Amino acid sequence: MPTARLPMPAKSETGDPLLLTPGPLTTSKSVKTSMLHDWGSRDATFIRVNKEMRERITEAAGGRGTHTTVPMQGSGTFAVEAMIGSFVPKNGKLLILVNGAYGTRAAKICQYAGRAHQVLETPEDTPPDLAKLEAALKADPAITHVLVVHCETTSGILNPVAEIAAITAKAGRRLLIDSMSAFGALPIDAREVTFDALASSSNKCLEGVPGFGFIVCDLKAIEQAKGNAHSLALDLHDQWKVLETTGQYRFTPPIHAIVALHQAITEFVEEGGVAGRGGRYRQNAKVLIDGMRAMGFETLLPDRLQAPIIVTFHMPRDPKFHFQTFYDRLKDLGYVIYPGKLTVADSFRVGCIGRLSPDHMRGAVETVRAVIADMGVSQLGAKRAA
Amino acid sequence: MPTARLPMPAKSETGDPLLLTPGPLTTSKSVKTSMLHDWGSRDATFIRVNKEMRERITEAAGGRGTHTTVPMQGSGTFAVEAMIGSFVPKNGKLLILVNGAYGTRAAKICQYAGRAHQVLETPEDTPPDLAKLEAALKADPAITHVLVVHCETTSGILNPVAEIAAITAKAGRRLLIDSMSAFGALPIDAREVTFDALASSSNKCLEGVPGFGFIVCDLKAIEQAKGNAHSLALDLHDQWKVLETTGQYRFTPPIHAIVALHQAITEFVEEGGVAGRGGRYRQNAKVLIDGMRAMGFETLLPDRLQAPIIVTFHMPRDPKFHFQTFYDRLKDLGYVIYPGKLTVADSFRVGCIGRLSPDHMRGAVETVRAVIADMGVSQLGAKRAA
Repeated sequence: MPTARLPMPAKSETGDPLLLTPGPLTTSKSVKTSMLHDWGSRDATFIRVNKEMRERITEAAGGRGTHTTVPMQGSGTFAVEAMIGSFVPKNGKLLILVNGAYGTRAAKICQYAGRAHQVLETPEDTPPDLAKLEAALKADPAITHVLVVHCETTSGILNPVAEIAAITAKAGRRLLIDSMSAFGALPIDAREVTFDALASSSNKCLEGVPGFGFIVCDLKAIEQAKGNAHSLALDLHDQWKVLETTGQYRFTPPIHAIVALHQAITEFVEEGGVAGRGGRYRQNAKVLIDGMRAMGFETLLPDRLQAPIIVTFHMPRDPKFHFQTFYDRLKDLGYVIYPGKLTVADSFRVGCIGRLSPDHMRGAVETVRAVIADMGVSQLGAKRAA
Repeated sequence: MPTARLPMPAKSETGDPLLLTPGPLTTSKSVKTSMLHDWGSRDATFIRVNKEMRERITEAAGGRGTHTTVPMQGSGTFAVEAMIGSFVPKNGKLLILVNGAYGTRAAKICQYAGRAHQVLETPEDTPPDLAKLEAALKADPAITHVLVVHCETTSGILNPVAEIAAITAKAGRRLLIDSMSAFGALPIDAREVTFDALASSSNKCLEGVPGFGFIVCDLKAIEQAKGNAHSLALDLHDQWKVLETTGQYRFTPPIHAIVALHQAITEFVEEGGVAGRGGRYRQNAKVLIDGMRAMGFETLLPDRLQAPIIVTFHMPRDPKFHFQTFYDRLKDLGYVIYPGKLTVADSFRVGCIGRLSPDHMRGAVETVRAVIADMGVSQLGAKRAA
């Protein structure tokens, strides 16, 4: 009876499986409970909550007095498309640093929106080539903006945003940052890193529920963004102007998700902001990586490139390893890992973010160990090309 | 002590003021409670819930076998923009029937998206001119699509969608319907009314929380919509194709809001679907209109044009009537009416939709009566031009 060795299923505060995914993620019970009310979108209480939420996000980005936060309805991609379409003028050109699916998606957004763009690509386990970036900016004066993905969730790689920002600023160009899965856990300070805009979302490291994204905008840059957008719904300048003038949204906001993020940010501040949140995620990642490596799993990335957000593991070479069985067994035992892969490498991913503690990660590692043993899988190292 | 006459504040099931607004609205406690969990967006349970939600919406539109429902992240306007951008080809032309702010907004969407369009406008208390529609379609063969707003929330007017659909079909053109505030309460049956697409949202008559819209699409029309969209995020064809192929969303869905709408639709079906829901709203509107008229208030619209969704009242001529005081007093007593006006006429609006019963509306009327008396307002008839 090998199954006798399996641990009891893990559960979140609300009795759900733990989400070890890059978002949507496990949120606290108090965040979800904050949604048990209805508010009018023009209600004074909601307007105050929304204003506070915006201010605290700007504060967390080190942008007080110089930047503003503009929420955007929809998923993170809606926020990224709003950022690109609103900041890159119709006659501008965007240089996109690609080392994963999210960089590639930014290029696709440019195709839809009719924005000239150039892609500078490196493999998924390799940071952008800074010398090539410098050369590209020198070679093409038409380039007005650069876009970098902070943590490319495809692999979990941490890209060197500060260095890229310095090169971009030195060349007199403007920077857009897709910090979707990083903001709130990996430090970025607008007083030290120059950017026009940085996009993230409600259901990543700030630990709210999905429903909207937000863009931290340089005040001068957003003022200049009037008339750029290719979409009414995604016009960030218009969204900002109306929010500033009336305190209200142009179009119905996802009120419950906004109130939830307001509560989530209170909990984020209580945890010590970026330092506290990032510290916990680093512990989570360390427990996971150390534990999985001890069993024989191999990570795609070396430690120096690994962000503590999501970890990509090579598929084990053991022919007895079937991913779907592995996934289903883990899920039954309360750990939902990421079922899809985006990398070129044959791999799977495990997230470290959300309302998860190092103890949860220890539980996940022990459960992986038990499931692997139960499956009779022993050779956990990566498949190698013959 | 005139305030002694005031009733006790009204409260929803969760202790909140009642929202007499056109959405976001008061939802049931069970709808909100359904959001107290976290699900992965690729989770089998969530995929099933989402599929069921889509099927039941198609069913409510009479579109089983001929139509499909495609959800779209964001507010209702995101859904309308996705519908226009995805169905009207780049070389198409949209004729927009305007008698309020939402028709005007559709024209603005066309400007952003670069779609040729023509506006056929009538005053806000007047339905579209059907003879002019017929003539316009005959006069301009470049027109490929017609857009009508089902219930124009600006005034609350019900537009004659079936007649407009017949004229459009006869002229060999395609119809897009903005049924934002009507779908689920006012009957529309795809077997009788020909349309390519109909847009509505999660937080209107189906009584979910805000977070996304949905578009009921004719299957042949959505198949033909490939490559039209001006926006990646708002590309309805792409959204549909990926949902059909994988059961999953291209980009993170607002999971909690989707699960809430799934629950709300269960309650909608229990209430008897469109007939039951629309019946309750008609009672709500009757109690409201009869009660307000009995006091001396005047509605903007005659009964034959009034949809049972939201009612516009003329501002009373009594100089002692101050709207902000009236609004604040009502809010303190548990009734949140709509604080802004969109009409040309000096007016205010009261919504009849959401988890509200005729008893709630009787309470609202009695509270208006008490507040008016307390304010010393007596002349409730409309201001007239001198």
